[in-house]
Amino acid sequence: MAAAATTTATASYSTISPKHNVSFSTNNHHHFNKNALAAPPVIETSKSSSDEVPTVVDVDLGDRSYPIYIGSGLLNQPDLLQRHIHGKRVLVVTNTTVAPLYLDKVVNALTVGNPNVTVESVILPDGEKYKDMDTLMKVFDKAIESRLDRRCTFVALGGGVIGDMCGYAAASFLRGVNFIQIPTTVMAQVDSSVGGKTGINHRLGKNLIGAFYQPQCVLIDTDTLNTLPDRELASGLAEVIKYGLIRDAPFFEWQEKNMQALMSRDPDAFAYAIKRSCENKAEVVSQDEKESGLRATLNLGHTFGHAIETSYGYGHWLHGEAVAAGTVMAVDMSYRLGWIDESIVKRVNSILKQAKLPTTPPEMMTVDMFKSVMATQLEAYQSL
Amino acid sequence: MAAAATTTATASYSTISPKHNVSFSTNNHHHFNKNALAAPPVIETSKSSSDEVPTVVDVDLGDRSYPIYIGSGLLNQPDLLQRHIHGKRVLVVTNTTVAPLYLDKVVNALTVGNPNVTVESVILPDGEKYKDMDTLMKVFDKAIESRLDRRCTFVALGGGVIGDMCGYAAASFLRGVNFIQIPTTVMAQVDSSVGGKTGINHRLGKNLIGAFYQPQCVLIDTDTLNTLPDRELASGLAEVIKYGLIRDAPFFEWQEKNMQALMSRDPDAFAYAIKRSCENKAEVVSQDEKESGLRATLNLGHTFGHAIETSYGYGHWLHGEAVAAGTVMAVDMSYRLGWIDESIVKRVNSILKQAKLPTTPPEMMTVDMFKSVMATQLEAYQSL
Repeated sequence: MAAAATTTATASYSTISPKHNVSFSTNNHHHFNKNALAAPPVIETSKSSSDEVPTVVDVDLGDRSYPIYIGSGLLNQPDLLQRHIHGKRVLVVTNTTVAPLYLDKVVNALTVGNPNVTVESVILPDGEKYKDMDTLMKVFDKAIESRLDRRCTFVALGGGVIGDMCGYAAASFLRGVNFIQIPTTVMAQVDSSVGGKTGINHRLGKNLIGAFYQPQCVLIDTDTLNTLPDRELASGLAEVIKYGLIRDAPFFEWQEKNMQALMSRDPDAFAYAIKRSCENKAEVVSQDEKESGLRATLNLGHTFGHAIETSYGYGHWLHGEAVAAGTVMAVDMSYRLGWIDESIVKRVNSILKQAKLPTTPPEMMTVDMFKSVMATQLEAYQSL
Repeated sequence: MAAAATTTATASYSTISPKHNVSFSTNNHHHFNKNALAAPPVIETSKSSSDEVPTVVDVDLGDRSYPIYIGSGLLNQPDLLQRHIHGKRVLVVTNTTVAPLYLDKVVNALTVGNPNVTVESVILPDGEKYKDMDTLMKVFDKAIESRLDRRCTFVALGGGVIGDMCGYAAASFLRGVNFIQIPTTVMAQVDSSVGGKTGINHRLGKNLIGAFYQPQCVLIDTDTLNTLPDRELASGLAEVIKYGLIRDAPFFEWQEKNMQALMSRDPDAFAYAIKRSCENKAEVVSQDEKESGLRATLNLGHTFGHAIETSYGYGHWLHGEAVAAGTVMAVDMSYRLGWIDESIVKRVNSILKQAKLPTTPPEMMTVDMFKSVMATQLEAYQSL
């Protein structure tokens, strides 16, 4: 299979012409973009046909613009990280699962040939339940005890929880220091590391405390997926599928043809899926950084999904699993309201099943439970 | 005495021509601006000759610009606040000292003739020692339990601690909501409410966690000073004196002539001193919002002052008291280094004594204590 992590490689995957006059919409303003075939405005500044040269997707946010580097073996290219380190002190924020796998590698990438830089690290417990103020304070404690100054850089090494916490810590430490995202899960690579949403949970709701704060760069080494459990991998694919559904019909069609390649961890297929997802997210974020409108389309499946997570308890289902079941519910509602035809419902069910994702809510969830959660769930809080 | 809270009223106070070729500088880059006589670039959009029309100082920060309203009886003018409330929900953050004095008045100003707006309030314990994460969480708790959404407005009613905490809470709640400053101390009116520095203390240092976050407006009702204890009043004057020293020689000379009027709480003198201080701070902040250089001049006296606060313990001396003694030490050092002549030292001592502020550090402070604190005090942390 040809290298996929390039724009030109798109042609190496078969795509079908849209046979359905796709028009997909819910009352949450999720919709297919009928113009999704138009070339994306995201700038390609580099193309790759080997593992050595990363694909670059630029997030265009004026003076807060930054590159996303995507490719295999990128943690073996120290220059990619070092060009974004402006001071002499770095704090790597990671967790107990990821540290044994990649911390040494990241420290090496930050320091090799660069003796002026010193690296501290703080290793947090792993899991959504630790995405709270008490755990965040451990990051501040470490930064302050290490006497980091305003020119330091925080590096988030891990999944979405680490990225969100490290980003918010960077936004708040000394009123803002630089930070870099090194996401190691599909979910973080295609969604949470891109776009500058950072924050922590409150006991009464997710992501209620945080900041919009953009990194200096995002470095996605696709090799880190080699250590990701199957279930985590599939969970991230729920967000990949979302981009196809909300604004990129050709990408959805590509996924329908290539889901088995993704499930078998074909590196080229994954690099392409990540690049295309990042391009879609970057385009949306560039147009609506602080979610005054368009950005809310990224929440397809998340309204029902949050109800599932809230009712069923975090930790039972992964975020992407709840989003997958929530997406089916949103699609089903759209069909019942007459906004889409049945074929879309079938295709969504089919691709989620291929990705081994749930297509129905947990059995314990009753209609009354959905009603109860969604009635008390704040409009403003649903989409965070 | 003519109304002072106007630009034209400047002439009603005698000013002296600079007799000294003032050049005041320390290694912290604090200096007199020799061009301080030039007209300030701050825009006057309104002038007042009665208690009814506020003086307005605009802080020019592009799309984050905002007005500072200054005058007597402004809390009796509901329109001033209401024009800056865009949603229907307001959270007033105040403390146990200020709430009994002004909370009802503020709630009334927010709601009179405006039945669509509902106001919640959270009353925090009073004091610097409560400027911490635990107390900040009480603001988030109240906001979330009240189900405030992204269109809500936080209102800081109190001194510098309340302003810093409420501002940081507003910066972080749902990744940022609107806020308004209603400072009720001289210190907050002339310094902490202007410029967007918000944050909380960490057990290892002051203001280490926070955000640069600008309010929608600052409303300074000078009548609130009527309830301010003498010592708090004098503490704020330390910052007023600072503006004269670092960049506004005519203002310093005005203060030398009018310190007794300020100490006797002459409302016109106070309105003028507040306006001129806000203009000076607004100019500095407009040029260097995030303290990459010029803004550090605002820290005159704060390097020694922080050492005093750290060694002597917060709560013994007010911030302005430590700054006053620190200013004398900075001036003395500048004199010993040959950067200023003795007359400046005498004038600084004299005006601080007139303001009943300390001009020497606490007796328990030894040279070794200063050395110890200042050697371990981080360069980056001194000026926060």
